[in-house]
Amino acid sequence: MDDVVEELIAALPEGCVDTDPETLERCSHDDAEWADYALPAAVVFATSTQDVVQTMRIAAAHGAPVVPRGAGTGLSGGANAMSGCLVLSLERMDAIVRVDVDERYAVVQAGVLNDDLRRHVAEVGLWYPPDPASQSISTIGGNVATNAGGICCVKYGVTRDYVLGLTAVLADGRVATVGRTTAKGVTGYDLTGLLVGSEGTLGVVVEATLRLLPLGGREERAIVGYFGSLPAAGRAVAAVSAAGIIPSALELIDRTCLDAVAQWQGWQLPEGAQALLLSKVDEPGARGEELAQRIEDIFLEAGGAQVERATDPDEIARLFAARRLAYPALERLGPVLTEDVCVPRAAVPEMLARIERAAADEGVVIANIAHAGDGNLHPLIIAPEGDDDAKRRAKRAFDRIVEDCRALGGTVTGEHGVGLLKLPGAAEELSPVVLDLHAAIKRAFDPRGILNPGKAFPNGA
Amino acid sequence: MDDVVEELIAALPEGCVDTDPETLERCSHDDAEWADYALPAAVVFATSTQDVVQTMRIAAAHGAPVVPRGAGTGLSGGANAMSGCLVLSLERMDAIVRVDVDERYAVVQAGVLNDDLRRHVAEVGLWYPPDPASQSISTIGGNVATNAGGICCVKYGVTRDYVLGLTAVLADGRVATVGRTTAKGVTGYDLTGLLVGSEGTLGVVVEATLRLLPLGGREERAIVGYFGSLPAAGRAVAAVSAAGIIPSALELIDRTCLDAVAQWQGWQLPEGAQALLLSKVDEPGARGEELAQRIEDIFLEAGGAQVERATDPDEIARLFAARRLAYPALERLGPVLTEDVCVPRAAVPEMLARIERAAADEGVVIANIAHAGDGNLHPLIIAPEGDDDAKRRAKRAFDRIVEDCRALGGTVTGEHGVGLLKLPGAAEELSPVVLDLHAAIKRAFDPRGILNPGKAFPNGA
Repeated sequence: MDDVVEELIAALPEGCVDTDPETLERCSHDDAEWADYALPAAVVFATSTQDVVQTMRIAAAHGAPVVPRGAGTGLSGGANAMSGCLVLSLERMDAIVRVDVDERYAVVQAGVLNDDLRRHVAEVGLWYPPDPASQSISTIGGNVATNAGGICCVKYGVTRDYVLGLTAVLADGRVATVGRTTAKGVTGYDLTGLLVGSEGTLGVVVEATLRLLPLGGREERAIVGYFGSLPAAGRAVAAVSAAGIIPSALELIDRTCLDAVAQWQGWQLPEGAQALLLSKVDEPGARGEELAQRIEDIFLEAGGAQVERATDPDEIARLFAARRLAYPALERLGPVLTEDVCVPRAAVPEMLARIERAAADEGVVIANIAHAGDGNLHPLIIAPEGDDDAKRRAKRAFDRIVEDCRALGGTVTGEHGVGLLKLPGAAEELSPVVLDLHAAIKRAFDPRGILNPGKAFPNGA
Repeated sequence: MDDVVEELIAALPEGCVDTDPETLERCSHDDAEWADYALPAAVVFATSTQDVVQTMRIAAAHGAPVVPRGAGTGLSGGANAMSGCLVLSLERMDAIVRVDVDERYAVVQAGVLNDDLRRHVAEVGLWYPPDPASQSISTIGGNVATNAGGICCVKYGVTRDYVLGLTAVLADGRVATVGRTTAKGVTGYDLTGLLVGSEGTLGVVVEATLRLLPLGGREERAIVGYFGSLPAAGRAVAAVSAAGIIPSALELIDRTCLDAVAQWQGWQLPEGAQALLLSKVDEPGARGEELAQRIEDIFLEAGGAQVERATDPDEIARLFAARRLAYPALERLGPVLTEDVCVPRAAVPEMLARIERAAADEGVVIANIAHAGDGNLHPLIIAPEGDDDAKRRAKRAFDRIVEDCRALGGTVTGEHGVGLLKLPGAAEELSPVVLDLHAAIKRAFDPRGILNPGKAFPNGA
């Protein structure tokens, strides 16, 4: 790999190629430290599409594996490096190229932070909905690579629903611009949608054209309530869905998460509360009031306590802070193995009950946060640092939850991506025929298999 | 091909293989008679997935081309047959397999009519939004193959936005089940989205899992107005968009269409009206009232006359009848060459002006209907039967409109698909790199190129 690195240093602008051990360490994995990773030979910090083109040309000439990387906030190991590979970081390509206010779209480079885009377009009365919990630190490129979800996607959809077009550098260094800027368009295959969620295995996304919504016209009302058991909270979730209500957020946080946040932040929690449901509706006026009331009624019927309403934006932000703080609060307790199963909404109570049983049977701590309104659960399995037996038990609980999710008609990853962690689950979920199609598409885009090899789908080919 | 037909007759249930000349003629093309077509050797009317599997296996063994067919209502020639091919009709596979009310999805066979699905799910309080003008006669399979749009997609999106999963028979007869039934899911590549809009070139869709919305919670208000010129109506459309209003319908019908409908139906039109805008909003209560009022104000400011409001469902249906009747009314006047360009919403007035100039310069009649709120225009070019010179001029106007649309940042097909008619436009719109990717994907799915060859994208490979 020394040749490759030498060539890259010669071909790219000064400061783009970094072989400093600290950088190699920092860029060797994403937030899924449970998955395998190793040190790359170098990290390329691209500053332009041309840098990415040069990098891929040189890598292709040598057959060198390349792992594209956004901010490294992924939770499935999609950005984990293999020994001696190149990591290709897009974090310096952080320009918002343009915003078309009339047509309601933005063209941004891959390294733009999700929140930076949201703030920028808000100034012209527009809104970029996808809001992964990592929104303040994750990049649009990473969001696109994983088809990131978030809190509001129960009503507003996921990243793919907002990507109109992409510019991607292919494995051989050619540049492909796909998609459109118009409201509709069906010219050719949906390569845009195919690249979204492909975890850097088909091309390196350098620029995205993102559909925006008008910012105005919404009025947020929050409804929160505590529940005496996890399945009780699950029943409230299922009842909201069965009532035909589509909230703009419906999040669940269990006692373990609440305790971690409360200890960290010095909050008090009510006695007996085992789960908190956080819900929002955003229809304005009487309709919003009616929906909030119906959700409140459903929470109370399902046994909710301290059911509260809020319309003040600061108060709503305070209520939802627990959700955003849950993951970092838990990480303070030890390495977290993050699940991302998604089950039918009606199966949420049963899935939560099965997660509790898995935790009890394996003797591990499992905390739960969930985009409950989507049936997308994030059991967080915690093993104390250095306890190998706990780690094995945690892994068994992880596998068992995947199995239970499949048995209930679910999918092994709702929004984090397959990366490395969900390869066994994906092998169960995708049929041999479908896996063959994956391998054939991979070969069509990347015949030598240099782009993020071994990620996104089990590739026996 | 005689061997192939004999084998099919032996392998398939009685009555599935039809070589009757009338059937061959009827199934030799869709509604795009301007595009090339020829008689197939046989039409297979599949009654089950197994029938499709058998057909593809036999076709693959012989390298026989297969043209999948829904109801044949396409407007780009995507279902047009080539001489001696097999046409594979899905129209007899018309079962609604199941509706999951809690999870809000339906599983349907490809031959189910769009309206039949809509009616069926309405009985359990659910709604399937995509509503192409052909909704009473087109099939879900055809809608999926073309990623069909419609009137409500300005607010509710297109067919792809509602397809959660598909079962497709591949070129070699293998069955691929892709996608999910859960609200979210990112396991593997988005093969579902790739198959949607692929016009039967990658697989034969036999079953679709379709996302549904709650039927209730909407209240329709219609706002209609006449305009003294086409660009004036276009300016009203651009102003609605610029105001950040997302209506649930915003349709334009020009004088030529209105005259055709009025003559057919015995209606009276106001003096001087050159275009009619039909708009709807569906927010309930005060919010809906406010939006309707803002649209009314915009119509009046842009010079609208006889601006009317309606909330009665029958009255709204009457107002929108002109839109649904426009295409059949025009077809009574002669063969219609249908355009499907989609431009940025702000460019709608300019594009309409250019269409008028193209009509004047080429001396052809061009009528206009448009999903104006999406910038998706359907100039309908009419040439009297048997007038070869008019036909040549019509073709020139068609090409010129495609060029103008591209010059204004548009796409050559908003919702009808490339089929055969838009192959030259697609060759302009898609770069050589992107066309290479199309050819590579096509080879990955269908190495022998037997599935609807020559459609959907210009395949020089």
